[in-house]
Amino acid sequence: MITILKKGTPKEEQDQLVKWLEEQGVEVDVSEGKYQTVLGLVGDTSNIDIDMIRMLSIVDDVKRVSEPYKKANRKFHPDDTVIDLGGGVKIGGGNFVCIAGPCSVESEKQIIGIAKRVKAAGATLLRGGAFKPRTSPYSFQGMKADGIELLLKAKEETGLPIVTEIMNENHLPLFEDVDVIQVGARNMQNFELLKALGKIDKPILLKRGLANTLQELLMSAEYIMAGGNEKVILCERGIRTYETYTRNTLDISAVPALHKLSHLPVVVDPSHATGRSEMVEPMALAAAACGADGIMIEVHNDPAHALSDGAQSLTPDQYDVVMDKIRSVKEALGTGVWQK
Amino acid sequence: MITILKKGTPKEEQDQLVKWLEEQGVEVDVSEGKYQTVLGLVGDTSNIDIDMIRMLSIVDDVKRVSEPYKKANRKFHPDDTVIDLGGGVKIGGGNFVCIAGPCSVESEKQIIGIAKRVKAAGATLLRGGAFKPRTSPYSFQGMKADGIELLLKAKEETGLPIVTEIMNENHLPLFEDVDVIQVGARNMQNFELLKALGKIDKPILLKRGLANTLQELLMSAEYIMAGGNEKVILCERGIRTYETYTRNTLDISAVPALHKLSHLPVVVDPSHATGRSEMVEPMALAAAACGADGIMIEVHNDPAHALSDGAQSLTPDQYDVVMDKIRSVKEALGTGVWQK
Amino acid sequence: MITILKKGTPKEEQDQLVKWLEEQGVEVDVSEGKYQTVLGLVGDTSNIDIDMIRMLSIVDDVKRVSEPYKKANRKFHPDDTVIDLGGGVKIGGGNFVCIAGPCSVESEKQIIGIAKRVKAAGATLLRGGAFKPRTSPYSFQGMKADGIELLLKAKEETGLPIVTEIMNENHLPLFEDVDVIQVGARNMQNFELLKALGKIDKPILLKRGLANTLQELLMSAEYIMAGGNEKVILCERGIRTYETYTRNTLDISAVPALHKLSHLPVVVDPSHATGRSEMVEPMALAAAACGADGIMIEVHNDPAHALSDGAQSLTPDQYDVVMDKIRSVKEALGTGVWQK
Amino acid sequence: MITILKKGTPKEEQDQLVKWLEEQGVEVDVSEGKYQTVLGLVGDTSNIDIDMIRMLSIVDDVKRVSEPYKKANRKFHPDDTVIDLGGGVKIGGGNFVCIAGPCSVESEKQIIGIAKRVKAAGATLLRGGAFKPRTSPYSFQGMKADGIELLLKAKEETGLPIVTEIMNENHLPLFEDVDVIQVGARNMQNFELLKALGKIDKPILLKRGLANTLQELLMSAEYIMAGGNEKVILCERGIRTYETYTRNTLDISAVPALHKLSHLPVVVDPSHATGRSEMVEPMALAAAACGADGIMIEVHNDPAHALSDGAQSLTPDQYDVVMDKIRSVKEALGTGVWQK
Repeated sequence: MITILKKGTPKEEQDQLVKWLEEQGVEVDVSEGKYQTVLGLVGDTSNIDIDMIRMLSIVDDVKRVSEPYKKANRKFHPDDTVIDLGGGVKIGGGNFVCIAGPCSVESEKQIIGIAKRVKAAGATLLRGGAFKPRTSPYSFQGMKADGIELLLKAKEETGLPIVTEIMNENHLPLFEDVDVIQVGARNMQNFELLKALGKIDKPILLKRGLANTLQELLMSAEYIMAGGNEKVILCERGIRTYETYTRNTLDISAVPALHKLSHLPVVVDPSHATGRSEMVEPMALAAAACGADGIMIEVHNDPAHALSDGAQSLTPDQYDVVMDKIRSVKEALGTGVWQK
Repeated sequence: MITILKKGTPKEEQDQLVKWLEEQGVEVDVSEGKYQTVLGLVGDTSNIDIDMIRMLSIVDDVKRVSEPYKKANRKFHPDDTVIDLGGGVKIGGGNFVCIAGPCSVESEKQIIGIAKRVKAAGATLLRGGAFKPRTSPYSFQGMKADGIELLLKAKEETGLPIVTEIMNENHLPLFEDVDVIQVGARNMQNFELLKALGKIDKPILLKRGLANTLQELLMSAEYIMAGGNEKVILCERGIRTYETYTRNTLDISAVPALHKLSHLPVVVDPSHATGRSEMVEPMALAAAACGADGIMIEVHNDPAHALSDGAQSLTPDQYDVVMDKIRSVKEALGTGVWQK
Repeated sequence: MITILKKGTPKEEQDQLVKWLEEQGVEVDVSEGKYQTVLGLVGDTSNIDIDMIRMLSIVDDVKRVSEPYKKANRKFHPDDTVIDLGGGVKIGGGNFVCIAGPCSVESEKQIIGIAKRVKAAGATLLRGGAFKPRTSPYSFQGMKADGIELLLKAKEETGLPIVTEIMNENHLPLFEDVDVIQVGARNMQNFELLKALGKIDKPILLKRGLANTLQELLMSAEYIMAGGNEKVILCERGIRTYETYTRNTLDISAVPALHKLSHLPVVVDPSHATGRSEMVEPMALAAAACGADGIMIEVHNDPAHALSDGAQSLTPDQYDVVMDKIRSVKEALGTGVWQK
Repeated sequence: MITILKKGTPKEEQDQLVKWLEEQGVEVDVSEGKYQTVLGLVGDTSNIDIDMIRMLSIVDDVKRVSEPYKKANRKFHPDDTVIDLGGGVKIGGGNFVCIAGPCSVESEKQIIGIAKRVKAAGATLLRGGAFKPRTSPYSFQGMKADGIELLLKAKEETGLPIVTEIMNENHLPLFEDVDVIQVGARNMQNFELLKALGKIDKPILLKRGLANTLQELLMSAEYIMAGGNEKVILCERGIRTYETYTRNTLDISAVPALHKLSHLPVVVDPSHATGRSEMVEPMALAAAACGADGIMIEVHNDPAHALSDGAQSLTPDQYDVVMDKIRSVKEALGTGVWQK
């Protein structure tokens, strides 16, 4: 961490700050120049409150050099984290996972039908929304507990472990048999929820917030890990920009960036990122080519019910095609273990 | 709401959609053109799930014409909402409120000292953080319940009603004597928290999320109001852009925009928006000049303790000056009732 | 400038870099820590090419501490720049300017009619577009040379100096009698145009680009100033964000920020920033309250011709009202000299 | 185009508008609802000035349904455009191009050395900056005319057609033997330059602006095409967001989006987008996998001169590896013709 002092800072106040910083357990290298004095903080600075230092009247600016996260940081954990998702399915360290399923669980027939189809196509995890975060209080909020029940039935039928979103720590008892708990983009900085998830022993799929930096995503992972639960899977699902053609802008460079910064596995969700079914295939292939550890795709089957043939969901037939191509790309590049 | 159908949509599927829309309680005007067919949905469309319609295979695009919020919408409530904040202090409809206090409650002496000073300067509400949402799990998370106790003591000493942030619905019992409950920017779309706050009878100060649109802010207000609690105060506190000089970018145009779209009072927080104490005065004056119903400013007094003289907080002396200027601007424009 | 070297950089390569930096005319303070080595560059670093340093294989990161602009920098020119705009009108250093006129010059009758009205309301500069940068090649591109002729006639009639936009350095001969030349947002980084304007002796109104930082705006001012023309007026006209209610987001905090960073005058354009006439008054008052040196407002008069009664333009009657209120705010705050 | 009238618009004014619109050559479908009246404009609306309509006092909102570009629009040109770049190299319609070379031309030895290496690796076009748009007037601005001379020598030596950036229409005579002229991101909306390039008969590589939408990129392409030059190649090179880890955010979804909206070829530039050499390979593979028609990569060889071993450039050896992997991905997917 680099602390730049204001020009003309009295020596006394500078010394007071240096002393305080040393008490926080870091070494301080003082570099005095003609125009400014720079304090280089070395050692473990993750406990230092950067905002507090920035607030000091004698400080002109503070810049982090080392990252503020520790447990999520590759520097301190050079090897890829491999997480067991249940049913023998692993993610990370070359283990590649395909997650598929409908946006919302709607009925037993629906979820089991889709589960069978995506399993046949090679998916290794079933997704489905039971609690749905919706912008409008008047929109469908999901089947809630019943939705989780139906997911568990689909798991029983197919053997696929399941992932579904939590919105409230008080709902945790309902998630006991869920294999992977998802934290949605809007809750990425719901720190109370993150703390609660840090106390359980279950993989967490943490989605990047709509306007959050990679560092903030990793700090949210750190919240969970600091609580004791180190099974965190990061998920890029598109960020908010001024572009309106796609729902969000898929930040595909997040994949290699997160792999460099962290040892945690990284999943890409092209369905939510683009909001357009015709873009799911090219974005899924891009994700596979650049080294994602998993790809999460919305799949819906209900051809008879025209109203639910969604612009962002693939049909099972379309999913078959995408999966074949993903397989080809990964084989061509020789990356990752295709499971089962 | 305008629904644009894809070119070549079979008549049968179009009729099916029109029928379904009519079942949702809206009238459908069909406008057939050479290049596309447009369905104009008229009536109360706030219950219509726009995402669901956009997902239909025959739909090219859907655009809202009327807003998706009802209770927060000025169209349906032309008069300004006036909210009683306790202690005879009102906000909205020309009632102007000055909220001031430290970022975090630190000690009894601190909070009472500041409370007295800001009251003397003309503040009508005391703010102070007890539960602090921090990006890092290693940063100070606030005094929590003890912080609320100290705020209540300051209220007892000065008579100023208090506002403080909630992060978890399970903490609600601790907020029983708090006058105004704040929802922070990062929880603006924590829908479970909003639902819980919709069930209580207490003013809610709802901060705009870092990358949320005005419509999303109003939808979050709608969540609270839909639950029965219509005492919502909106707060603009800066949005995230690529500019790095200020912490966030204060969207001052949110004030007249929200006043046009909604009847709810609008508060501006120049301290968090800019993150720089020298910018608090000009931004506070801008807010006063453009018609904000309240201004929330961070004030800190602890000159002896150099470490807490913050870049974003004003000293009580600086606050005195700002308050005088705010008063001059409001008198010059003849807007609003200066309370007490 | 702070240069952070990669861990494990060979001493030899570090020395080579230090030597090279010293040859560029800066002193280098080396701060070696446990985790990294930091080079503090002190002296005049504005000639140092930060991108080139960042590209070095041994460099982890480079951060500017001092600004890369010199002539536009308040540090080196503590006093406000005052610019004579012609006709005895000055801007900066307390001299406040009101610029008004139509988006486009349309006819002699139109421009002279508006010029008289805005002059009567207290405007000190007439604006009007002759060359119009349009997103579509099929949109009206302005009256071009004829438009400038009409502006000059309006100047003759009213005595108001005129400001109009240039899009091509080859058009410069047409601007000989124009008092202030405007560079539009889309040309803020048209460096060839900036260089050409650096060689003339005429005030330049430089608009901030839609997605440019304050530093980039000041670097573009520096381009003009480095060429010899130091008469640069900065203009905030709204930046691009994800918000769609307003055309752009007026970054009002740019006013105090630019005043702190630079000695150049700062104008605010609320008409283009918001794109909505009903927001022009509140945003103009915000600009006046926070210390802008000038306010540029679109005014249009052609009540008979309904098609041009624009959503973003004020009528002359509305402009009268806004001007009265601006005057009240400035008198209340005792800031600036109201000219004429 | 959908025009929504304000509630309570007098019938007379509505009729006046409808009449005026019909005079512009479009049909108008009037849909009157309980809450608003909607005018559906059908026919060729690309000549309609949407801003002008939005400015009308009776208009609440205008939304485009069909795109404002015609020549660049796939709807009117269903087949992919194939452009001959010289030397037998084609782009588009399955013809895949690899563009490589240094950021700046520095010397004859440098550019010829790199040209030979990238040609050996399979590159089909040589890039190199002669005129360099730099944020700072004090930064190296390129070798200018001499740089173009050196590129032409490299072309002579290797047979590779060359692409280099233009910043000023007055420089056009210098570009006579250049095969492809690049328009940089900062000049994407330099409409005067676009118009000048519309009058020549040479392929233009048009880079997306840092904060421009896909529609704006296509409108800029339309500017060139409207002038008569239909040889436009679109280039995604990263957009500006709040993320700071990468220099810009590569919007990889622009590839399938542009392919859907337009028939023009699309190139991806992972070097400028990320600003980090270690991310060039994964982003290049992502671009290849999602169907880009070309990939432009910065390659630099000057191992002895440590200062120019750039963070964003690959060495020729690294480029060899990337090219092998790109080839594997394209073979696996069976897309595109690998030239030569």
